[in-house]
Amino acid sequence: MKAKEIQLSHGSGGQEMNDLLGRLFYKHFANDILLKAEDAAMLQMDGPIAFTTDSFTVSPLFFPGGNIGKLAIAGTVNDLAMAGAQPEYLSSSFVIEEGFSIEQLTTIVESMAKELEKSGAKIVCGDTKVVPRGTLDGVIINTSGVGSVKYAGLSASNVQPDDAILVSRNVGSHGSCILMARDELKLESDLVSDCDTLWPQVKALMDAGVELHSLRDATRGGLAAVLNEWTASSRVGIHVQEKAIPILDEVHGLCELYGFEPCDLANEGTMILAVPRVEAEKALAVLREFHSDAACIGCAAEADKHRVTLTTPWGSRRYLDMPRGELLPRIC
Amino acid sequence: MKAKEIQLSHGSGGQEMNDLLGRLFYKHFANDILLKAEDAAMLQMDGPIAFTTDSFTVSPLFFPGGNIGKLAIAGTVNDLAMAGAQPEYLSSSFVIEEGFSIEQLTTIVESMAKELEKSGAKIVCGDTKVVPRGTLDGVIINTSGVGSVKYAGLSASNVQPDDAILVSRNVGSHGSCILMARDELKLESDLVSDCDTLWPQVKALMDAGVELHSLRDATRGGLAAVLNEWTASSRVGIHVQEKAIPILDEVHGLCELYGFEPCDLANEGTMILAVPRVEAEKALAVLREFHSDAACIGCAAEADKHRVTLTTPWGSRRYLDMPRGELLPRIC
Repeated sequence: MKAKEIQLSHGSGGQEMNDLLGRLFYKHFANDILLKAEDAAMLQMDGPIAFTTDSFTVSPLFFPGGNIGKLAIAGTVNDLAMAGAQPEYLSSSFVIEEGFSIEQLTTIVESMAKELEKSGAKIVCGDTKVVPRGTLDGVIINTSGVGSVKYAGLSASNVQPDDAILVSRNVGSHGSCILMARDELKLESDLVSDCDTLWPQVKALMDAGVELHSLRDATRGGLAAVLNEWTASSRVGIHVQEKAIPILDEVHGLCELYGFEPCDLANEGTMILAVPRVEAEKALAVLREFHSDAACIGCAAEADKHRVTLTTPWGSRRYLDMPRGELLPRIC
Repeated sequence: MKAKEIQLSHGSGGQEMNDLLGRLFYKHFANDILLKAEDAAMLQMDGPIAFTTDSFTVSPLFFPGGNIGKLAIAGTVNDLAMAGAQPEYLSSSFVIEEGFSIEQLTTIVESMAKELEKSGAKIVCGDTKVVPRGTLDGVIINTSGVGSVKYAGLSASNVQPDDAILVSRNVGSHGSCILMARDELKLESDLVSDCDTLWPQVKALMDAGVELHSLRDATRGGLAAVLNEWTASSRVGIHVQEKAIPILDEVHGLCELYGFEPCDLANEGTMILAVPRVEAEKALAVLREFHSDAACIGCAAEADKHRVTLTTPWGSRRYLDMPRGELLPRIC
């Protein structure tokens, strides 16, 4: 009978590990490069390449709208997409706690395979470690990835004064969703994480010939972190109309309950764009084919350099600062 | 006053994380590509590229001859070297337990920077997550890497009948060392881990014009796993003279005490080579410039396909099987 739980021997480099790799990873991630890979995968790539890495530690591992596997693919694919690169080859490295359910692990791996289809990226190499019970809470996944740069020059330092600042959909749902999914909370809601692969949207923008200055998925630190990073790197000010930021009622409600700033909450499939003002409508038309609530939320400016200024619905102005402290651990 | 321990806010994507990245990672890993990297690093590479990943979970984090940081660089660099690739660009992703000592983290990062010098590889992108106290034992590091293939065709399926099988130094010291460093054991010894970057040895072999068929660093599963993998992939038998395998007295002693097979023990800077028999002496001459105990331990053959056969010092023969079960968790 096959084991139902991960055992230390599944990470020992011997027979049991080979069996697990075969019936789980090689089965679901099968492709020519992975199947030929030994200590390393062999790739043929030319020209400018983007390279990124991310370790995923989300708790709970399964949340409305996704799980750690979906997140691990979308997160790394999105980092490549934000650099203007087509996601091509990914690594996946699992650290698993002894006793972890093989059924749950299978669900996670299946979600990864499904999410890969959205960008066409392939897992070409991997690693599996098993650590003794009690030395890790469940599973941690690292994905790293490489892709060919299709649109050069995207950069946090490339936001120009007078650029329009767009968001691809409502913000704050991943962070809210993780908060509500925590055991200690008994909130009920239909809210699901925005966790998703952004490459199709980036490709559609490129295909439509939209001029792009900067793209960033608003993960840890949320919209606030992205805009503050842009003001610092590009030496511009950014002015945002608070009421223009699309935020779901559930997210608003949760933020009022906990005293959170929705713009600080993590997203996992929501990007912020800086585009020339004249390109804003064209960009929004593309983005709205994916999410009807894509919006222009403000603009960059010469004035108020290094500051993000929010105009409230009542006409007053306040600064939106870089988030400080820790709202919520293990969101991604 | 600066924090002396890692706090959750160091992984939140906000101000505290930026401060930590600046005074730790950017400081020690500084290079042009890393400093420009945003969501992804931009690389210029052409032609065949090797890509690999590894997560490091070793316990204890500091052991005689190294620490998790040295291991994380050597391990990934060695996977590239074993593929005939010059290690060039690495990612480093840290998952850190809340409360972890910043002094220890600094030592780990410094060791990484020092180990990188041996191959000239650079850290070009990274990620940092902090998880709450009690959900992880210390720190886990993932390194992934890419390199340009300088010697094509190295493969576990490329071992030819009549190839000489060489080892680059004595085997089993890393596994023995980790075992002895565990708190529960009170053994004393001068044994240090073999943990090391193998690229200089691989480059020296290439520079000397040695023909190579297969290279493999004997990590988890040790020499036994490598030889068994070769017999399966290359459809050959491998015959080894047990007394020709260089093993230190301390390793022998520990194995007798615990009933371990030295050939199953992990190494982190020891490679196994399959080379044409006529190239064996030339290869050994190069390897002995690095370690005087490099040795030819046997040969591949048409006979006994898929089996590794050991001739004991008393002339009897036994099979060396793929390791089963778990000798020791968290060795790498």
